[in-house]
Amino acid sequence: MRAISVLGATGSIGASTLDLIRRQPGQWRIVALTANGNASELAKLAREFAAEIAVVADEAALPALREALAGTNIHAAGGEAALVEAASRPADLTVAAIVGCAGLAPTMAAIEQGRCVALANKEALVAAGEVMTAAVARTGATLLPTDSEHNAIFQCLAGNSYDHVRSITLTASGGPFRDWTLEQLHTATPAQAVKHPNWSMGAKISVDSATMFNKGLELIEAHHLFPVGLDRLKIIVHPQSVIHSMVEYRDGSTLAQLGPSDMRVPIASCLAWPQRMETPLAPLDLAAIGELTFRAPDEERFPATRICRATAEAGGAAPAVLNAANEVAVAAFLDGKLAFTRIAVMVEQVLARYAPPKPASLADVMAIDAAARAEARSVLELVTQ
Amino acid sequence: MRAISVLGATGSIGASTLDLIRRQPGQWRIVALTANGNASELAKLAREFAAEIAVVADEAALPALREALAGTNIHAAGGEAALVEAASRPADLTVAAIVGCAGLAPTMAAIEQGRCVALANKEALVAAGEVMTAAVARTGATLLPTDSEHNAIFQCLAGNSYDHVRSITLTASGGPFRDWTLEQLHTATPAQAVKHPNWSMGAKISVDSATMFNKGLELIEAHHLFPVGLDRLKIIVHPQSVIHSMVEYRDGSTLAQLGPSDMRVPIASCLAWPQRMETPLAPLDLAAIGELTFRAPDEERFPATRICRATAEAGGAAPAVLNAANEVAVAAFLDGKLAFTRIAVMVEQVLARYAPPKPASLADVMAIDAAARAEARSVLELVTQ
Repeated sequence: MRAISVLGATGSIGASTLDLIRRQPGQWRIVALTANGNASELAKLAREFAAEIAVVADEAALPALREALAGTNIHAAGGEAALVEAASRPADLTVAAIVGCAGLAPTMAAIEQGRCVALANKEALVAAGEVMTAAVARTGATLLPTDSEHNAIFQCLAGNSYDHVRSITLTASGGPFRDWTLEQLHTATPAQAVKHPNWSMGAKISVDSATMFNKGLELIEAHHLFPVGLDRLKIIVHPQSVIHSMVEYRDGSTLAQLGPSDMRVPIASCLAWPQRMETPLAPLDLAAIGELTFRAPDEERFPATRICRATAEAGGAAPAVLNAANEVAVAAFLDGKLAFTRIAVMVEQVLARYAPPKPASLADVMAIDAAARAEARSVLELVTQ
Repeated sequence: MRAISVLGATGSIGASTLDLIRRQPGQWRIVALTANGNASELAKLAREFAAEIAVVADEAALPALREALAGTNIHAAGGEAALVEAASRPADLTVAAIVGCAGLAPTMAAIEQGRCVALANKEALVAAGEVMTAAVARTGATLLPTDSEHNAIFQCLAGNSYDHVRSITLTASGGPFRDWTLEQLHTATPAQAVKHPNWSMGAKISVDSATMFNKGLELIEAHHLFPVGLDRLKIIVHPQSVIHSMVEYRDGSTLAQLGPSDMRVPIASCLAWPQRMETPLAPLDLAAIGELTFRAPDEERFPATRICRATAEAGGAAPAVLNAANEVAVAAFLDGKLAFTRIAVMVEQVLARYAPPKPASLADVMAIDAAARAEARSVLELVTQ
């Protein structure tokens, strides 16, 4: 039996993780399950999996969690300190799937314990990349990337040396607007932006996919996960999202990972690593798919990848500022307060206005995140006045 | 410095191998170079690479080889026994690139010494698969597959267990006739058959590609190299030949190897394994390629893959008989004596008429090969009368 903690158990990655664990009865012991505020769903999962501890980040939800777990041996806790304590508990694998900056401290706590961490929290590497990778190097923690693209790269790198990598290429679906003209993009609505062609995702990440900020953020993540140098990291638009990413070696061999658009594939890869577990997904049928197409990204219509690459090059605090600015801009777009094409403009404006020194700790990152959000909101006020 | 022998140095694989070795000055010491009968070319290469020994299979070419090597320290030899002796000499890597059944004995000699063998001789695994793999198991030799498809599979399997493989898919270009109707195929000429769309190859293998016997033979090879069971070995038609083959795992991940249609890529993979060496090939540009297409093979128009699969299932002597019958049939087709669509028919006829017991040794395989050729020639006389 392997011990596992799932931070962010009620979200989409958490649900996929627990779906897979459910299919391996007797193989896993659940240490901690956490949620933001959905006490009833968390309690239900904690009971089903006989978790050691269940934690709600939102302390206001703790009484409801306690009530829902009454009569069990499952410990109930609430608040950020409890989240960090739960993440620090010994486990063979910690799935870090809390969305947003709320996931930073618990993810860092698992890394600080030198654990094996299946990393699905994008902010960990985008906002806190240098702090996080320094901690990994110091503690000997293992990061297993859970994002489909980064997991694909991780698989394609197995057994190889970074020295032999000629390039790493992230594939991008191009999002719902990939064939739209710049003029059409000016008028894109939130309803249009959240309709992703291949993946079923939340609103924020769907908009990120439409702007290509998602791919840009993944570029920043890849830069931290796979230190081959930014000039060796590439992006290609591949509308079918069948190839999830690839690695080209100096001998001319390119290894690619292909699969269905189902997060259970990369999660299963992390759960079983370095083995492989059975998943219930239908075999890949390329003859039925018929064709895979590719094109170079158009950074005129979709400047996000260019902005993210420059931000990764700048390093220091810039990626945290970019991440915060993008979140505020996307929220404003979803709120009908900002045009689609102004998201990237606003992110660049915030980056130009706010350039704090390099963060030395997670606390620095959190402070930069908060200040960048405030800056973004004031830029937003100027823009929308 | 690593020691290497190249059996079949003047052929296409030999030339590509030596091209790569030439690019790594000071890293290789050449033990043996062999050729069939081209003494002057062999002597030229032996001088350039300061080989220890140069061998011509055809003893009649030995005087010319001796003369061409006069004044050097390079030992000249000729005949099959000399070939086997040269192949048995200690080397860190033996490239087995002799075409046809002439390659069996020297390849086996290297395996018997427990060497690391880069295997480009198709007949080794098609005709003598069971004998050869038994020798590998007994001696602890390492086989590095050099064919682009098998090398792709080898790369995609790295670090994984056969137990976790859901399927292995060989890609096939479909050859020059992939879009021809059965009626058109009846009238296909040798000149049309040897025009391969992606690879520049010899006449025999080009015809095999056109009939799909090449892919069927590769299926038999894969069956011996990667023992996952024939039901897990698949073939897909992929006209662009960019994906060279792939492996699907039970978690839903498929790993594929992509690259240019240049044999130097898989050869480099063998030369540097488990490292990777630099090759002079241009990076893969999928955006320029634009699209990769896939379709299921049509075994009505191209029955070869069906015949080869059944032959692999039968095992024993059948693959050796099939290989010999196909060689005779292809020669007859190239000679204008047999219609293109009769190649497969003739192979099946020979298989039906000649079913010797399972070979226990390489001598048995050679005897079966000779008898099958005789049988094929008598079938051919019946057919062409």
